[in-house]
Amino acid sequence: MNTRFYNAKILTMAGDFSIIEGELWVEGNRITYVGEPKKENGKTSLPYFDREIDVKGNLIMPGFKNAHTHSAMTFLRSYADDLPLLDWLHKQIFPMEAKLTGEDIYHLSKLAILEYLTSGITANFDMYFSPEDVTRASIDMGFRSVLCAGISEFTGSAEENLENLENWYHKYNHHHDLISYCIGFHGEYTAERPLLEGIAALSRKYKAPVYSHNSETKAEVEQCLKKNGTTPTVYLDQLGMFDHGGGGYHCVHVTEEDLAVFQKRGLTVVTNPGSNSKLASGIAPITKMLNMGINIAIGTDGPASNNGLDMFREMYLVTVLQKLKEDDAAAAPADQVLYMATAGGAKAMGLNEMDTLEAGKKADLVILDLHQPNMQPINNITKNIVYSGSKQNVKLTMVNGKVLYEDNQFYVGEDVENIYRKANEIINRLR
Amino acid sequence: MNTRFYNAKILTMAGDFSIIEGELWVEGNRITYVGEPKKENGKTSLPYFDREIDVKGNLIMPGFKNAHTHSAMTFLRSYADDLPLLDWLHKQIFPMEAKLTGEDIYHLSKLAILEYLTSGITANFDMYFSPEDVTRASIDMGFRSVLCAGISEFTGSAEENLENLENWYHKYNHHHDLISYCIGFHGEYTAERPLLEGIAALSRKYKAPVYSHNSETKAEVEQCLKKNGTTPTVYLDQLGMFDHGGGGYHCVHVTEEDLAVFQKRGLTVVTNPGSNSKLASGIAPITKMLNMGINIAIGTDGPASNNGLDMFREMYLVTVLQKLKEDDAAAAPADQVLYMATAGGAKAMGLNEMDTLEAGKKADLVILDLHQPNMQPINNITKNIVYSGSKQNVKLTMVNGKVLYEDNQFYVGEDVENIYRKANEIINRLR
Repeated sequence: MNTRFYNAKILTMAGDFSIIEGELWVEGNRITYVGEPKKENGKTSLPYFDREIDVKGNLIMPGFKNAHTHSAMTFLRSYADDLPLLDWLHKQIFPMEAKLTGEDIYHLSKLAILEYLTSGITANFDMYFSPEDVTRASIDMGFRSVLCAGISEFTGSAEENLENLENWYHKYNHHHDLISYCIGFHGEYTAERPLLEGIAALSRKYKAPVYSHNSETKAEVEQCLKKNGTTPTVYLDQLGMFDHGGGGYHCVHVTEEDLAVFQKRGLTVVTNPGSNSKLASGIAPITKMLNMGINIAIGTDGPASNNGLDMFREMYLVTVLQKLKEDDAAAAPADQVLYMATAGGAKAMGLNEMDTLEAGKKADLVILDLHQPNMQPINNITKNIVYSGSKQNVKLTMVNGKVLYEDNQFYVGEDVENIYRKANEIINRLR
Repeated sequence: MNTRFYNAKILTMAGDFSIIEGELWVEGNRITYVGEPKKENGKTSLPYFDREIDVKGNLIMPGFKNAHTHSAMTFLRSYADDLPLLDWLHKQIFPMEAKLTGEDIYHLSKLAILEYLTSGITANFDMYFSPEDVTRASIDMGFRSVLCAGISEFTGSAEENLENLENWYHKYNHHHDLISYCIGFHGEYTAERPLLEGIAALSRKYKAPVYSHNSETKAEVEQCLKKNGTTPTVYLDQLGMFDHGGGGYHCVHVTEEDLAVFQKRGLTVVTNPGSNSKLASGIAPITKMLNMGINIAIGTDGPASNNGLDMFREMYLVTVLQKLKEDDAAAAPADQVLYMATAGGAKAMGLNEMDTLEAGKKADLVILDLHQPNMQPINNITKNIVYSGSKQNVKLTMVNGKVLYEDNQFYVGEDVENIYRKANEIINRLR
């Protein structure tokens, strides 16, 4: 399937935030041309296009990367709100999760993927049980997923052990063009030292980065200080966890010393402002991280804690929460936030071919409709995206060269009403 | 124009947050029936309907009330961001505003109204110059507006004086079914005592409520303490400003004593979390206000400071900012926030016929599409609206019995591209 997008504004994110006027070609799953209008030259040696889309002056940009989520938790949306994190996890979330089947996880992941598409998200960094079912959902819908192992002592599945994790690492990194797999664990507070040492050994064996929840709540950090005499980040680093990079999800309650580890090891902070606010966990020191040159990505976290999976809401939260925290209306400017939501996430997720719009890259992109009142007038497009943009502006979402969402319709190989029906059946059975 | 909505879930907001299944009739501009399905009874004495809409199990609810905004400031969206409030006002906003014509204000207000409709907002509490042009925009589009006088010492228009304010109070309260007018002033910090005394005298003369910006920034409160020896709220109350009610916009930096005035006088706090965050003004003590039984409404503030005009984003911000401020995930629960955005706003704006969905009330309502991934599964509809709802769920917006927005199309008597073109012409001329 070859597609030509013409009459477009294009934010390539290659180098800076400048916007070019022109066209973009997709041949198969790759971008083959980005630049000035071509057809007007009267050339006839253009490739064959199955479809030519008049973008009507709207914006093509790289798809958003949702760098931390638990997709299948859609079943808990609006089910257990308004509780502190640890109570919420142990009393509401873990008992419900224990009842899930693999087939449930398949359908619930699909529901989340629909929501990602409406928000222009083209890949997720997904921590959940049952990689077989999670990858099946992504592959069947044509969506790109980087799985992150979420092993813990309390794991919801007996299959989650170090041996299987190593098998999965091999299997899901050679499984399908849309799927990759990252070493990880749930968090320092749900793992004893032998398990963590096992993870670190795997990381060294494969020279592979490691991700986990890290310093999400004050209580978590205090417990670690008591138990291990140091913070989660420093403790994990002492175990050799970050010798080959990686990073942490949340990173709300991090110290200067922790951030020095992030800086030294080239780790990524994946920030989750919606979840951290809704669960009253706190505001991450993003401004400090930016000043230290630490790579930052943005995740929605799962739908049980946010409860929406909307990158526009997250981008707005990242910037306005920093402005509040720093008492500085200039904190976390729009361009930097847009970078986090796209290229910053791609870097975290190892998606080096899906970060920018350039010839040779994979075609993971979105069209944002500028012909909507919230994007008018056009004083500054990147500011419009971050400060007033919304899911409603997402006109088209393309993953790996295929249009999966366009003009409010989904092209994911299944009637969406069927996916909604399944999700409701599951919650009715479980509660 | 008579419309029958059937096969609907209906959140009437009359008394509680329960949702009924049934139908709703609109005859002319009024709701004439809300309740169980009727046609199935085989009755033939139903009114004539021009249109019968199958709501397909989606939700009908009262339209949102945007209880503080400056609509015509759309021209400054993404123009002057990332500056502290007072710098921003004096160096960027006031000089640009001074160049606006009445015709500019007419077109720029229309652009804001389009955005309100996409977010399910059916009325705005609008503080701006040139009431003739602001009301013309609302009337021409069929939108409901409560104007609030915004008089100050630095006023952008020579017409803004006490005599004209009194004339406008008469004129625009007897002008058109869609328009009303409220006594108000810009703020304590932009008015000397004689002007404020004049406003208070008008309020007493007409037994009318008064609104203004109040305690938005710390600097504003400190200046007032220095100048008047007390806080803005107490100072204004001492001048007799609140003898007949009213309230304040923002109310971020309010003391216990201030809130006691709000409680005693039955005043409304109009909270503006997006603007207060983006300008680093702070987080209003909403939880304290709720505990004191103070009426709270929600406003987007103008598009120069937010920069979007989206009630879903504001509702989410109200609740998550309180959870952060109070370090309590149970703070500002969803139902209460939904009340603020609808009935709380209606109360503030004197829209006593547009607050709930009951027979006899004016037909200002919205349909929210529940058949979208962010609203599935359906564990709890009011939580879904506040925690994961978005503009994308707004399927239809009806004001005064007329559909102005449906399935992403506007029915406002003018091609929207023309409104966008005008806004861009204006900014190109002004800058």
